[in-house]
Amino acid sequence: MAYIPALPDSNAPPVRINLLSDTQTRPSAAMREAMARAEVGDEQMGDDPTVNALNERVAALLGKQAAVFLPSGTMCNVTATLSTCRPGDEIIAHRTAHILSREGGAHAAIGGFQITPLDGDDGQFSLDAFRAALHPRSRYQPPQTMVSVEQTANIGGGTIWPQATLDAIAAAGKAAGLVTHMDGARLMNAVVATGIAARDMAAGWDSVWIDFSKGLGAPVGASLAGSRDFIDEVWRWKQRLGGSMRQAGVIAAACNYALDHHVERLAEDHAHARALAAGLAQIAGVEVQEPQTNLVFFSPEGAGLGGEAMVAALRQRGVLLATMDGRIRACTHLDVSRDMIDETIGLVREILRRQ
Amino acid sequence: MAYIPALPDSNAPPVRINLLSDTQTRPSAAMREAMARAEVGDEQMGDDPTVNALNERVAALLGKQAAVFLPSGTMCNVTATLSTCRPGDEIIAHRTAHILSREGGAHAAIGGFQITPLDGDDGQFSLDAFRAALHPRSRYQPPQTMVSVEQTANIGGGTIWPQATLDAIAAAGKAAGLVTHMDGARLMNAVVATGIAARDMAAGWDSVWIDFSKGLGAPVGASLAGSRDFIDEVWRWKQRLGGSMRQAGVIAAACNYALDHHVERLAEDHAHARALAAGLAQIAGVEVQEPQTNLVFFSPEGAGLGGEAMVAALRQRGVLLATMDGRIRACTHLDVSRDMIDETIGLVREILRRQ
Amino acid sequence: MAYIPALPDSNAPPVRINLLSDTQTRPSAAMREAMARAEVGDEQMGDDPTVNALNERVAALLGKQAAVFLPSGTMCNVTATLSTCRPGDEIIAHRTAHILSREGGAHAAIGGFQITPLDGDDGQFSLDAFRAALHPRSRYQPPQTMVSVEQTANIGGGTIWPQATLDAIAAAGKAAGLVTHMDGARLMNAVVATGIAARDMAAGWDSVWIDFSKGLGAPVGASLAGSRDFIDEVWRWKQRLGGSMRQAGVIAAACNYALDHHVERLAEDHAHARALAAGLAQIAGVEVQEPQTNLVFFSPEGAGLGGEAMVAALRQRGVLLATMDGRIRACTHLDVSRDMIDETIGLVREILRRQ
Amino acid sequence: MAYIPALPDSNAPPVRINLLSDTQTRPSAAMREAMARAEVGDEQMGDDPTVNALNERVAALLGKQAAVFLPSGTMCNVTATLSTCRPGDEIIAHRTAHILSREGGAHAAIGGFQITPLDGDDGQFSLDAFRAALHPRSRYQPPQTMVSVEQTANIGGGTIWPQATLDAIAAAGKAAGLVTHMDGARLMNAVVATGIAARDMAAGWDSVWIDFSKGLGAPVGASLAGSRDFIDEVWRWKQRLGGSMRQAGVIAAACNYALDHHVERLAEDHAHARALAAGLAQIAGVEVQEPQTNLVFFSPEGAGLGGEAMVAALRQRGVLLATMDGRIRACTHLDVSRDMIDETIGLVREILRRQ
Repeated sequence: MAYIPALPDSNAPPVRINLLSDTQTRPSAAMREAMARAEVGDEQMGDDPTVNALNERVAALLGKQAAVFLPSGTMCNVTATLSTCRPGDEIIAHRTAHILSREGGAHAAIGGFQITPLDGDDGQFSLDAFRAALHPRSRYQPPQTMVSVEQTANIGGGTIWPQATLDAIAAAGKAAGLVTHMDGARLMNAVVATGIAARDMAAGWDSVWIDFSKGLGAPVGASLAGSRDFIDEVWRWKQRLGGSMRQAGVIAAACNYALDHHVERLAEDHAHARALAAGLAQIAGVEVQEPQTNLVFFSPEGAGLGGEAMVAALRQRGVLLATMDGRIRACTHLDVSRDMIDETIGLVREILRRQ
Repeated sequence: MAYIPALPDSNAPPVRINLLSDTQTRPSAAMREAMARAEVGDEQMGDDPTVNALNERVAALLGKQAAVFLPSGTMCNVTATLSTCRPGDEIIAHRTAHILSREGGAHAAIGGFQITPLDGDDGQFSLDAFRAALHPRSRYQPPQTMVSVEQTANIGGGTIWPQATLDAIAAAGKAAGLVTHMDGARLMNAVVATGIAARDMAAGWDSVWIDFSKGLGAPVGASLAGSRDFIDEVWRWKQRLGGSMRQAGVIAAACNYALDHHVERLAEDHAHARALAAGLAQIAGVEVQEPQTNLVFFSPEGAGLGGEAMVAALRQRGVLLATMDGRIRACTHLDVSRDMIDETIGLVREILRRQ
Repeated sequence: MAYIPALPDSNAPPVRINLLSDTQTRPSAAMREAMARAEVGDEQMGDDPTVNALNERVAALLGKQAAVFLPSGTMCNVTATLSTCRPGDEIIAHRTAHILSREGGAHAAIGGFQITPLDGDDGQFSLDAFRAALHPRSRYQPPQTMVSVEQTANIGGGTIWPQATLDAIAAAGKAAGLVTHMDGARLMNAVVATGIAARDMAAGWDSVWIDFSKGLGAPVGASLAGSRDFIDEVWRWKQRLGGSMRQAGVIAAACNYALDHHVERLAEDHAHARALAAGLAQIAGVEVQEPQTNLVFFSPEGAGLGGEAMVAALRQRGVLLATMDGRIRACTHLDVSRDMIDETIGLVREILRRQ
Repeated sequence: MAYIPALPDSNAPPVRINLLSDTQTRPSAAMREAMARAEVGDEQMGDDPTVNALNERVAALLGKQAAVFLPSGTMCNVTATLSTCRPGDEIIAHRTAHILSREGGAHAAIGGFQITPLDGDDGQFSLDAFRAALHPRSRYQPPQTMVSVEQTANIGGGTIWPQATLDAIAAAGKAAGLVTHMDGARLMNAVVATGIAARDMAAGWDSVWIDFSKGLGAPVGASLAGSRDFIDEVWRWKQRLGGSMRQAGVIAAACNYALDHHVERLAEDHAHARALAAGLAQIAGVEVQEPQTNLVFFSPEGAGLGGEAMVAALRQRGVLLATMDGRIRACTHLDVSRDMIDETIGLVREILRRQ
């Protein structure tokens, strides 16, 4: 399941259109201004007012008792499993889930957990698939203690798990004694796209986090929420992993700013994604997955050009994106305008025409 | 992937025909005699002559530099991965392999390894499937350091990996920088069935072990073989796990006896398995997988009876076996005679007729 | 804290007097006979009658709800900590305790536990030292979840923890929320030396085990006892570590025999140890620690010869022992007679006279 | 070894003089300005110019091939041991070292490492103590793979390891096959106090890091340096732990600013510490450890008041500090002026007079 980003290439022209990832957004002037003014304290001592305000806000947004600020979304996933499971426990997730496919084996390496990969279209597994994966307790198999979903499902196409599926899997998981965890790296995209409140979307899930450094446009940080006891245990692991910080208010201020100013505008990214998909779909031989949020997966193979060759050709024209598991992924975000979308469509068309 | 053995049941009649597993064999009088006469020393100090003789013999049999005696086959697998991989490394194996499906998550729990499950018929994966699973080194994915096969493939039906496949996967694995490991719990069944020498069968595999407590009929023990450096490291883990023993010659003597007297006779078990399969196949509605060694998987569902119901009905008639992942598994071994096979076929027929 | 055994040396004369360790005892003819007659079943399935009888007997002996048979004492310690603690927990033990000094770092390696070493004479720590080691819960320090004692304290001189100390530490540990664990590798030596029943000695300790392959003279095996829930969890780890066996009744029979015939006779070993110590103490320049059980620690340095030189000189005369942390340890057991003791004293005297 | 910080207390007056820790410094206006102007990119992709510049600068400063930016000093220690050692390895450090006493058992929990605590005055161990801790390779003891020092030794009194000791231990460690690691949380304090260049101080040490969020006054971040191969491996663990960030240039800019403006001025903190110590030493009954850098440890017990009572009394007067292992620690830094020092001395005197 290879992820091949276009690495920095000094021979290539500067990047004008950056569709690589919503992690690439740069803080705006106003966001920087908020950071520069941030009131700060020692975060590790629980003493940074800006971080504390963010934690309370995220807990309320996600409908949980408490939240904690961490340097990255990966650390949210890692501390969540470490705080919940014991070595030799089994976690159920989709085959393409970030915790299994993009975190370097962290959950086995650090926690000793075995993740059972489920199949299913669009990066999602069904209630039936989940139920079929449950097994009775036995000395021969790991205890199953967690089920995890990723909202939206990145490699599945930025797809949104239907609320009914989320609720049903959470209920079935709890009935089987499992803890439920939601990787909400792009949860706010799903919230804006569906109009369902974040707290409702996450209602069945014991732990859930959002990432501020993706579509929300902040430079660094993610917040993990759950019960007070859970967050206490997360703090212990945050300390062990080295995720406790000092005057972290300087970065949390950007996250607060993002919650104030960058949530509703995710709708624009979704519109840009739809425009990109529509434009690409009109090019003969290009297959496009209908986007649900801000990710567009497409393949030019039907037009006789491989994904990596297309990525390279676009890079020569100042457009940055990458292949992911065989398809090209384009990601819209704060720094991508409608004009860039149109130009990208034109460039894809031109590249295919010229070959 | 549930494994549901028929647990000891005090209301059931005594077991007359034990087809549950070749792990159930009891030491014969002659084997017990060999144990009683064994010369012994302190195994942990490298000072038990019977164990030392067994180690040399197994190393020669498997074509490796050295071998070490361990209390179980599971400990062979566990010490092999611990001695080879680092936390966060990836091991490639079949979805049904013992290391993934039957060892309680040990390789994640103890070693921090992530096992990637491959699909494929009969408990085996193809060279293509293996190659497709390889990925370039990346911070986002675990380093791939080991490929493991199970010869024979238990849950696959006791099937024998073709030598060409074994050789090709080993070569491709080494070309990609992976260490190759063979779980040879029933390797000697494959050897007897094919006529290929054990050392040739395992030639491409850096580590390989055989189990004495399965078809070979010894009460306790397995031997893991590999390079001298590897075995040195295995010793370190054997010590840590508590697998170092004292006057282990008393049990190793049974293993030596088994190598002398119980290898060639595995052919009988295979003949019994074929007879059982042939008999069952003649019963209307019973589906049987053609056995290659001593395991027979069948399903009576086509005759209108579920596997677990059939297992329970046979148990009431003194026949012990179990379902495994939905099918019934019957295992022939030292304590199973041809008459017992015939009686079992008759009982299955009778049970289906009566319902 | 080096442990330097005299390794097998092919140039040395045969060992006539083996004082290296009580782990070196060889099964007697009668014990072998008991093994040869043992009724057996599949231990891993809970189906070996001889093992089951041993488990019940050990549970009763140690005053616990249940017991489980394991291949070694080290595995008793390892499964006990794995079943009790979580990664990052702290265990309190004496600096010289086997779990810290002789198990290859297993508790950190496998479980992720940090063992805090306490000082104290004779391999024992005081109630005050224990209390001083307790700290309030904090994110900066590991949660303290277990206190462990080793009865008798091997490297401390085979000393017996006074019952009042054991009771007081256990009570203080429980008051602080810790689980209490007793490594009883030589617990029966303490029982025979003091006349206190094993169940009383272990009364304050949640888990406790005895080793059959030391003074009790069986070739392989140890039994860990505790609550039913604890033993259930131990079984899970026994399975993962590869400590589950098959027809283990063949070795458990020797353990049952040892409980029948080899407990009371430990008094002989203690008498031999006292005789050895008394004899050595009369040699000018030899310092001897007064033995409480079957271990005699002494140093010939005051007579101008280093410990390792003395060990080597004795080895040349057919006597095997080793230095341990700078002193020489002699261990009496089943295969050591009073004559051998007298001869050893004479040889030490002679070696010192000749130098 | 309890660390009892004075927790936020809403009944207490505001903190006017913060001597709790140099981690409490707040970014100055000029530092915030540098952050607001920082050029940024995706740090995780190696694409943030400000972070890249910081990495090169730190590598040069510390005389190593490469460096990597991390969210905290704890993560520097954790990734350094994870990148160097294998589970079950032994690390040698002082009993009071941060990696053992303040990181929540992280190195056992995450890496499976056993840290052997050495004794020695002032948080330092001698070459002899180090040599005595070395043991030959054996299955019974963990392989010794790392020796770690903490410069300055925080709990030892902020003391500076003499260069000759550092060099000798590093040489002895390498001769014994160990990797050498320096926790340089306050290395720059030692550099400024001694005039020895950082690269010379760390010359014998394979890995070394500095913390920007202590005396250097930046809000978040630390940089770990070593060989290129080592840093590659650190990156893998940084990714797994969730320490990879995005537009981290916003915080790295503060670190660059700190290197430009806050190194030489550490001399002021040292002068303030000496002034504080001198003033306290003149109060009858107050025992003070002579400070070498910016930490002052003292005890008022000789004057009849316990450390915690003094801390509480000072807190009521607007001065914040804490006890550490029984003594009071005062820490001078960027936000502590000479007037504050004088006032603190006066308050201590007054409190003792009044009781």
